[in-house]
Amino acid sequence: MKLSQKVESMHLSPIRKFYPYADKAKAMGKKVYGLNIGQPDIETPREFFDAVNNYNADVLAYAPSNGLPILAEAISGYYRRIGVMFEPEEIIITNGGSEALEMIFNSIIDDGDEVVMAEPFYTNYDSFVKQAGGKLVPIKCTADDGYHYAERAKIEAAITDKTKAIAIINPGNPTGVVLTKEEMRLIADIAKEHDLFLICDEVYREFVYDGLEMSSFAEFDDIDENLILVDSVSKRFSACGARCGSIATHNKDLFVAFVKFCQARLCTATLEQVGSAALYNMDPSYFHDIKKEYENRRNVSYAALQEIEGIKCAKPQGAFYITCQLPVDDAEEFLIWMLENFDIDGETTMFAPAGGFFGTPGVGKSDIRIAYVLKAEEMQKGINIIKEAIKAYNAR
Amino acid sequence: MKLSQKVESMHLSPIRKFYPYADKAKAMGKKVYGLNIGQPDIETPREFFDAVNNYNADVLAYAPSNGLPILAEAISGYYRRIGVMFEPEEIIITNGGSEALEMIFNSIIDDGDEVVMAEPFYTNYDSFVKQAGGKLVPIKCTADDGYHYAERAKIEAAITDKTKAIAIINPGNPTGVVLTKEEMRLIADIAKEHDLFLICDEVYREFVYDGLEMSSFAEFDDIDENLILVDSVSKRFSACGARCGSIATHNKDLFVAFVKFCQARLCTATLEQVGSAALYNMDPSYFHDIKKEYENRRNVSYAALQEIEGIKCAKPQGAFYITCQLPVDDAEEFLIWMLENFDIDGETTMFAPAGGFFGTPGVGKSDIRIAYVLKAEEMQKGINIIKEAIKAYNAR
Repeated sequence: MKLSQKVESMHLSPIRKFYPYADKAKAMGKKVYGLNIGQPDIETPREFFDAVNNYNADVLAYAPSNGLPILAEAISGYYRRIGVMFEPEEIIITNGGSEALEMIFNSIIDDGDEVVMAEPFYTNYDSFVKQAGGKLVPIKCTADDGYHYAERAKIEAAITDKTKAIAIINPGNPTGVVLTKEEMRLIADIAKEHDLFLICDEVYREFVYDGLEMSSFAEFDDIDENLILVDSVSKRFSACGARCGSIATHNKDLFVAFVKFCQARLCTATLEQVGSAALYNMDPSYFHDIKKEYENRRNVSYAALQEIEGIKCAKPQGAFYITCQLPVDDAEEFLIWMLENFDIDGETTMFAPAGGFFGTPGVGKSDIRIAYVLKAEEMQKGINIIKEAIKAYNAR
Repeated sequence: MKLSQKVESMHLSPIRKFYPYADKAKAMGKKVYGLNIGQPDIETPREFFDAVNNYNADVLAYAPSNGLPILAEAISGYYRRIGVMFEPEEIIITNGGSEALEMIFNSIIDDGDEVVMAEPFYTNYDSFVKQAGGKLVPIKCTADDGYHYAERAKIEAAITDKTKAIAIINPGNPTGVVLTKEEMRLIADIAKEHDLFLICDEVYREFVYDGLEMSSFAEFDDIDENLILVDSVSKRFSACGARCGSIATHNKDLFVAFVKFCQARLCTATLEQVGSAALYNMDPSYFHDIKKEYENRRNVSYAALQEIEGIKCAKPQGAFYITCQLPVDDAEEFLIWMLENFDIDGETTMFAPAGGFFGTPGVGKSDIRIAYVLKAEEMQKGINIIKEAIKAYNAR
């Protein structure tokens, strides 16, 4: 009884596979700063819990396959407020942004098809593309160029006759790169010229700093057939455990394809949709303080990283991640060593080695991703531990 | 921009695609008895809602990818009480039984691989197998033989060198067939002899009638490597909207494969797992009244169906479905006609045409599935409408 080739080609999450080492450090009584995963410590708005607790039904029934109408309407209203038009009937509710990506790749990819994406990429994209039988082809970027990818030559170098889509996370995970409007236009043009789907994951849309304007690929009105817009409550409303994502598209054939997957898996959790509708109906002023908080954490984290001698790091302008290259040969080995051997006053740090975020062989071994999801002083302490650990590690 | 071949090969749900006709009947002021879908009207236990409402956290965080330990422990305890042993570490929490099946088929199937399953089959199995690139091969059964499939010759006729698994729903959806212990042993033997995975979907385990004992394939201790056990709170606790399923297996390689999919999609909804743990911790006496209620509905529904002249129908012994063959040429056309043209005192009925539940070409066009999920008197009324509608339809 053999397993499938597609599951054999998949890997355990490079973000989560170091948990056993962190657990061991905790079991030894150490405090571990968790900078490895995008799980914010920001409180989930009470609106979510209130809506769930007020839900009044004797039978917790299946929701409609495409999602509860109240949630699709709430998302449509949210889009309208940011100047983007999707009817509720053009929106599909998914089990987190993750299921959105699964449905998208399964709808457009057959064995051997390719998806182009900037490197380093959020590693789960690689899993979802492989799961669908396809291959993620990287747009090659490095720490030296600040992980900027929005150049015609770089992108077109990755496109072949097997390419089905360009996938973009903007603001970026794991790099925090935010595209300018001109760069977005360029990418839209390339998708049109090469007849490619354009998968735009904008779950960090509100989290842009330095006075930048947030924007959406859905503002372009000439890519209706290409565009597949992915959103989620996880980061936007600090509600990762709600698993409530969405897909919006004007492409009617694609929409029917998604509905097939929706109907096959019946629906997503009813209560979570009720709670998420309350989140999307909140006043947009909610984001004001959250954004200021993240911007401060970004500033503190970036400044702390600059203290590390030999680090290569560009200042991110959005989302809540920083990818950087550490002055160590192998970030995975360094992380394991740090968790097992290094602490300052009983405290140590967990980050995500970014090797699994790169598709180009041999690239990214020294790169790591940090999520600035903890309070500023904790970020500072956690990064300082990395700094001191590197000194000790390289002096062994 | 073409869609994938796999999504092109998938269909919209044959259970759900007739909703527009029912909606039209409702818009005309008619009452529609919904016998088409396994959505029980039994109340969801308050334990679920109480646990959700008492959940106290500032941040609704990601759950662990494999599931919340309290839920895995509750399921392990539930299994122990029915004489089946799975450690919490051998249990994966999924987004409904549906995601369990997606993970299973993606873990064992590559393009062209086959899964053997009794016909008529729960149609979503066909979708999930296709989604994974495979093909569902039917064990041929008909209304004439009461849809009984547990015969060596019938099963082995469907097995080829591409077969990776036998999939069983026991008690059966859509037929209500319940396997005897001898039949289960035969199927287990065939799986072992042919080196096949044995996917056992036992979500209706408690719903067996006529004094039959419920049992599980997990009681056999010689198929640990073959067995993949699927469960769900949806039907068991009338909590379809919770989307809380599970996979249990002793096969360590398979388990790691499932974890890859779990980690890629991060986790399932946290609150729903908290509520579902409370369900699995309930006293087993809960099922006593529920089972009596379904048995009565089964008796009333079966008796009402027997009133239809020319019907072919075997008395189901479990789950809450009856599949039968109506004396009409095409059950889909008849359903549409009935929803559009027929009512008794402003009431009409919706059932599931079972054509999509058959893989053998040309078979099943006159077959339908009824779910006895409504109160006995409603079942009686709904089936009586079908009876009278057939007379009118065939006399047109």
